[in-house]
Amino acid sequence: MKTYSIAAIPGDGIGTEVISAGVEVLQALAKREGNFAFKVDHFDWGGEYYKKHGRMMPANGRDLIRKHDAILFGSAGHPDIPDHITLWGLRLAICQPFDQYANVRPTRVLPGITSPLRSVNDKELDWVIVRENSEGEYAGVGGRVHQGSPLEAATDVAMFTRPGVERIMRFAFRLAQSRPRKLLTVVTKSNAQRHAMVMWDEIAVEISREFPDVTWDKMLVDAMTMRMVIKPQSIDTVVATNLHADILSDLAAALAGSLGIAPTANLNPERAFPSMFEPIHGSAFDIMGKGIANPVGTFWSAVMMLDHLGEAAAGARLMRAIERVTADKRFHTPDLGGTAGTADVTAAVIGAVEGAND
Amino acid sequence: MKTYSIAAIPGDGIGTEVISAGVEVLQALAKREGNFAFKVDHFDWGGEYYKKHGRMMPANGRDLIRKHDAILFGSAGHPDIPDHITLWGLRLAICQPFDQYANVRPTRVLPGITSPLRSVNDKELDWVIVRENSEGEYAGVGGRVHQGSPLEAATDVAMFTRPGVERIMRFAFRLAQSRPRKLLTVVTKSNAQRHAMVMWDEIAVEISREFPDVTWDKMLVDAMTMRMVIKPQSIDTVVATNLHADILSDLAAALAGSLGIAPTANLNPERAFPSMFEPIHGSAFDIMGKGIANPVGTFWSAVMMLDHLGEAAAGARLMRAIERVTADKRFHTPDLGGTAGTADVTAAVIGAVEGAND
Ligand SMILES: CC(C)[C@H](C(=O)O)[C@@H](O)C(=O)O
Ligand SMILES: CC(C)[C@H](C(=O)O)[C@@H](O)C(=O)O
Repeated sequence: MKTYSIAAIPGDGIGTEVISAGVEVLQALAKREGNFAFKVDHFDWGGEYYKKHGRMMPANGRDLIRKHDAILFGSAGHPDIPDHITLWGLRLAICQPFDQYANVRPTRVLPGITSPLRSVNDKELDWVIVRENSEGEYAGVGGRVHQGSPLEAATDVAMFTRPGVERIMRFAFRLAQSRPRKLLTVVTKSNAQRHAMVMWDEIAVEISREFPDVTWDKMLVDAMTMRMVIKPQSIDTVVATNLHADILSDLAAALAGSLGIAPTANLNPERAFPSMFEPIHGSAFDIMGKGIANPVGTFWSAVMMLDHLGEAAAGARLMRAIERVTADKRFHTPDLGGTAGTADVTAAVIGAVEGAND
Repeated sequence: MKTYSIAAIPGDGIGTEVISAGVEVLQALAKREGNFAFKVDHFDWGGEYYKKHGRMMPANGRDLIRKHDAILFGSAGHPDIPDHITLWGLRLAICQPFDQYANVRPTRVLPGITSPLRSVNDKELDWVIVRENSEGEYAGVGGRVHQGSPLEAATDVAMFTRPGVERIMRFAFRLAQSRPRKLLTVVTKSNAQRHAMVMWDEIAVEISREFPDVTWDKMLVDAMTMRMVIKPQSIDTVVATNLHADILSDLAAALAGSLGIAPTANLNPERAFPSMFEPIHGSAFDIMGKGIANPVGTFWSAVMMLDHLGEAAAGARLMRAIERVTADKRFHTPDLGGTAGTADVTAAVIGAVEGAND
């Protein structure tokens, strides 16, 4: 029997609540499947760790998780610590050195969930946003001169490399090719950002030649938000820079009914390093400890993890269980307008996993 | 009697159609008011001009419009010409040297228009987005090295100055202060863009001290898109960088029912140069020449121009006329789901201006 080693990093806020729910569900699923098992190691890194040790994770942190088959991540973000410290000290400190350059964010309106858009019903919206996850606006490049004086000037630099853009573009075209509609939208802002964004446009044209069966178009990021609202059905796969896709994917999650259900995979497609799976909702300290965090984003992220581990059938079983549960409004958490708690949803999904005879 | 000199620059595509409608309406309004007049000079700059002369406007173009009281602009953008040429050759070539650093974008759901959001009814959404319009991501800074080779690297640089950020922040706080709710949201992305965006955060705190009666909060740009969808009523005035606000304002226009109704003012608040007023819909070549362009964005921009000229009463009359017409679905153009043409809407607004006894 195969045993997968999972590094669980709950992080802060509701991260701990959803990750423990996620681990429960994964263990129940492995038991139901019978042909694989999980060995889960927990790492208590994050904001509370920072308050004790002055850093978000130990100096040898990455070595402790480098050999795991996958990482399950909760959230980073703590009210007592500046956001850029929690971000750069943990999430980016794992993503970037582990070269998880492909951030994949599916969006669907799950059964039972109502999109805030009048024009959208269940399942009518089926997007995957591919986010460049290793460079661009998150390169950390930039600086300030004459700090605090009237002469002050400051820059934030979006820095891209040709191989970095080529690999994410190829990844996105390949993903689009694997989906029924074979449709890709390449998002840039090359009218205003006229250097690196023009390189993106050029590389899109080059890589598109390797995928003659993929229909693709180009869109400016501002116009893309409008298209998501007005013609959501015209969209399938999307690729964009780190920042542009960060913005578009939050909007996508909102349009699909809740940030609480949105999953992410941070993939190192070459498998030289472990990939990382996380809900995108963040630490949400305002609802921490109340037992009402929506665990669906974590469960769906676990589905993506199973796919990545090669356990697609188990992933499909878990996805069916999730959809059966969201279809039942009794299991909607407050972010979805319901009154269910994390434990209710978790128990229902485990029940659906165990009961599912398919 | 006062005569205002207006430089009309229709530009390309439907720009010509909406600007001629706008001028008609302005002339009818002046006649109705009786105490001022417009002298309108037309400038045929844009993509067609570029095809003849190799540039978007004459070398002395700015000198020809520098003394006008205001500029009414249609749109730049032409299918035969790269977007960055039309943008930098005309719109930015006016905005930036004329130091129109405050770009103001009101969003409301006008009477008779349906928001794509289930939760929004007429008038429930009343936002003003203030966009930094002179630096940042539109500074043009950046470059490429090893172009086309595997070694290629490229940057787009968001470059800000302290005085540039202070003045837009002060402008936004003052605008928020003038509105009933006195509410401002400062949008940045300082967790990821950790240099200039942190300066934005610091300057927001500094300037806020000058406006103790304004309630303000801070929001990351990705989370802001979600708030616009999920809690639209919690928003009033917003200030953001050139790119972030470009994205947010397109989203705002979509959520308010159509890009066709959204107006903009490019203001030089110090009045050292003329300010410029334009609909934000763009050249829309796909519907050019069909007589179906929505002129409401231009009419609303004309209202903003009247306010800027000190003719607020006339502006209010025009706004009432616009709202009376949008309330009547017979005057909805195709972007609003109707079948009216530009001329129908224009005639109806002129009728309402002339008939209005208030
Ligand atoms: C938490 C934050 C740093 C993060 C980001 O900006 O990447 C988040 O918004 C996301 O989308 O995963
Ligand atoms: C046409 C385009 C260059 C422009 C911009 O990006 O500023 C437009 O999107 C806008 O919002 O006015």
